[in-house]
Amino acid sequence: MISVEEARARIAAGLKPVAAEMVGLAQAHGRVLARPVLARLSMPPADVSAMDGYAVRAADMQPGTSLRLIGEAPAGHPFAGRVGSGETVRIFTGSVIPDGADTVLIQENATASETAVQVNEPVAAGRHIRRRGGDFSAGDEVIPAGRRLSVRDIGVAGAAGHPWLCVRRKPRVAILCTGDEINLPGEPVQAGGIANSNAAMLAAFVAAHGGEPLLLPIARDTEGAVAAGAEAARGADLLVTTGGASVGAHDLVQAGLAQQGFALDFWKIAMRPGKPLIFGSVNAMPVLGLPGNPVSAYVCATLFLAGAVMVLSGLPPKAPRLERARLGTPMKANDQREDYVRAVLGEDGTGWVVTPLPVQDSGMLRALAGAGALIRRAPHAPAAEAGDVVEILPLGAA
Amino acid sequence: MISVEEARARIAAGLKPVAAEMVGLAQAHGRVLARPVLARLSMPPADVSAMDGYAVRAADMQPGTSLRLIGEAPAGHPFAGRVGSGETVRIFTGSVIPDGADTVLIQENATASETAVQVNEPVAAGRHIRRRGGDFSAGDEVIPAGRRLSVRDIGVAGAAGHPWLCVRRKPRVAILCTGDEINLPGEPVQAGGIANSNAAMLAAFVAAHGGEPLLLPIARDTEGAVAAGAEAARGADLLVTTGGASVGAHDLVQAGLAQQGFALDFWKIAMRPGKPLIFGSVNAMPVLGLPGNPVSAYVCATLFLAGAVMVLSGLPPKAPRLERARLGTPMKANDQREDYVRAVLGEDGTGWVVTPLPVQDSGMLRALAGAGALIRRAPHAPAAEAGDVVEILPLGAA
Repeated sequence: MISVEEARARIAAGLKPVAAEMVGLAQAHGRVLARPVLARLSMPPADVSAMDGYAVRAADMQPGTSLRLIGEAPAGHPFAGRVGSGETVRIFTGSVIPDGADTVLIQENATASETAVQVNEPVAAGRHIRRRGGDFSAGDEVIPAGRRLSVRDIGVAGAAGHPWLCVRRKPRVAILCTGDEINLPGEPVQAGGIANSNAAMLAAFVAAHGGEPLLLPIARDTEGAVAAGAEAARGADLLVTTGGASVGAHDLVQAGLAQQGFALDFWKIAMRPGKPLIFGSVNAMPVLGLPGNPVSAYVCATLFLAGAVMVLSGLPPKAPRLERARLGTPMKANDQREDYVRAVLGEDGTGWVVTPLPVQDSGMLRALAGAGALIRRAPHAPAAEAGDVVEILPLGAA
Repeated sequence: MISVEEARARIAAGLKPVAAEMVGLAQAHGRVLARPVLARLSMPPADVSAMDGYAVRAADMQPGTSLRLIGEAPAGHPFAGRVGSGETVRIFTGSVIPDGADTVLIQENATASETAVQVNEPVAAGRHIRRRGGDFSAGDEVIPAGRRLSVRDIGVAGAAGHPWLCVRRKPRVAILCTGDEINLPGEPVQAGGIANSNAAMLAAFVAAHGGEPLLLPIARDTEGAVAAGAEAARGADLLVTTGGASVGAHDLVQAGLAQQGFALDFWKIAMRPGKPLIFGSVNAMPVLGLPGNPVSAYVCATLFLAGAVMVLSGLPPKAPRLERARLGTPMKANDQREDYVRAVLGEDGTGWVVTPLPVQDSGMLRALAGAGALIRRAPHAPAAEAGDVVEILPLGAA
């Protein structure tokens, strides 16, 4: 059995980023940039006004002076002429500062008629002007490669003149759920059977983490069915299986994958829930085998699949971010397995309080859905009292 | 001018949730449930084993007893007969407990041959059994209406037997950017013109918050163009405009909307950046007019549009969640406008430290993209020292 940390490192080492594709700017949010964005334009493109007012010459600025209004230059319509001594041009936020003018008299400080503008409060040179390239200049790297694009990044890339961005394509993750007892929800349920929760849950998980799920038909408990599933996954960047990773006679995933030339990396982790976790590859396609139990499958997906999709997406490998909270009730000492305890997360005015669910049965998916966090208990962690600070992994929408 | 809080309340009051649609289970993640999910199945569907082992009768449990192995019942293949005195059936995690058996002897505590199982360590009645309905029973409401569905909820709905879910459709948000100086990125840029950043940024913003963006062609600075844009938005659940919300001669959005019968609710907010913010409706379609400046547009989107999309999606109105951080540098006293100051967010070992960007020019979109938070300064907030605790709005991917 290997540690959670070693498992994470070995999974990351077994994956490489997928190739890039071009996507339209408005669709690139959340994607990982494969090539840096270099500005094709400067922003602002010229010295422009930061206010509505009048383009003037600082030398003309005496209180009571009347300037001749020789034109106007709305944003997008630069003034073609030149502002001479005693002259002014009406401008607006974003208007290019006309030649000859060197400052902006804001409209609140002027009295204007149709042909003249009276200076009520003089202004020094260079005021209310956004300088050319003040935000960025053509040629600047405005977004580095390897970054997951935020909504604001989309705005920056747009201002920099990019209609397309070069991003990593979404990693294709094939999902192969195995078991004689399961059918997809809404399909007929035989005696002793259950509706499968893993398939749709993992498809949603993959999509929520930026991957593209490929939901394969459920494989029955034969080696041939599992082998056929692996064959159907060809072209995926990762094959995720559920079930059959344990040691019983009906645990056939490894045997089935072996028919396709499976190379095992590891298959047991010192953690709970989820000890049986397979990692390896079939014909260069990485394979992550999750437990069949949906609670264990979800916890293992959070700890390992999320990071795997990140690495495939071109992001650096990263463990889920742990936070700290105080225990609401005592906890017993832990054994040699790293434990992820389902818990309710609350606040008491001074900070987070986390309380383990009374029943930790890994069959309780509805209870998991109501949980706010997992408490991480290190191997051999000593008993803890109420009020002790523990590490938690908050559970969110993904 | 009204307060940020009042503006938020009036926007929420002017919106109502969109209608529902049916979506496939795997696509329902992140959507808001319109009808509660009632379990169609019980989970577990029967008393099932929580372990691999043998279904036995507690009355037979004496150390050294040898039980006759009369069959096996893999998950999905219940045993058709009955376990009599001195008998046992091989079972696995998830197997239905056969009639007659009342507990599970785990395989680690037994020695099995092909025909017999020797009890090495007796087990009490009722052990290692997941009881029928232990997670939920048919008819239980397993997910309430009005909840944004998490990945785990998808799993629960699947286990409850639902192939489809009834969710609010994505609110359709039409985006109408106005201005003579702007063109979409990659389109030719005229002298004094700029590449538009708002259109794609807001489309990404809407999508990131669960809406469906409808990107209209840019409207030039004429009332007719704005009116035509509003007409093109018909059928949207919300029309968002940018630009033209201020008081200059080229601020035409309200005049253009008026041609379509605009009913104004408010149009000035005591905040910075973003004072000119329009809210009203055109033929029962709500209209939110954002400033044209992309920094102001983004900040106003964060403060008002995100919440508007939530309300349209059927969620309760909610202000963005503010956190607390210590100031890295002093700040001056604030005037009568609520201020959202772009800032860098760091950590110093004891918690978050937030430091305003030296330049707060609302033309600096790239600077905004690098900011980690907005510092909220209440109207008339007094000067603050480095180390003082202030309210921040962390800026994330959306």
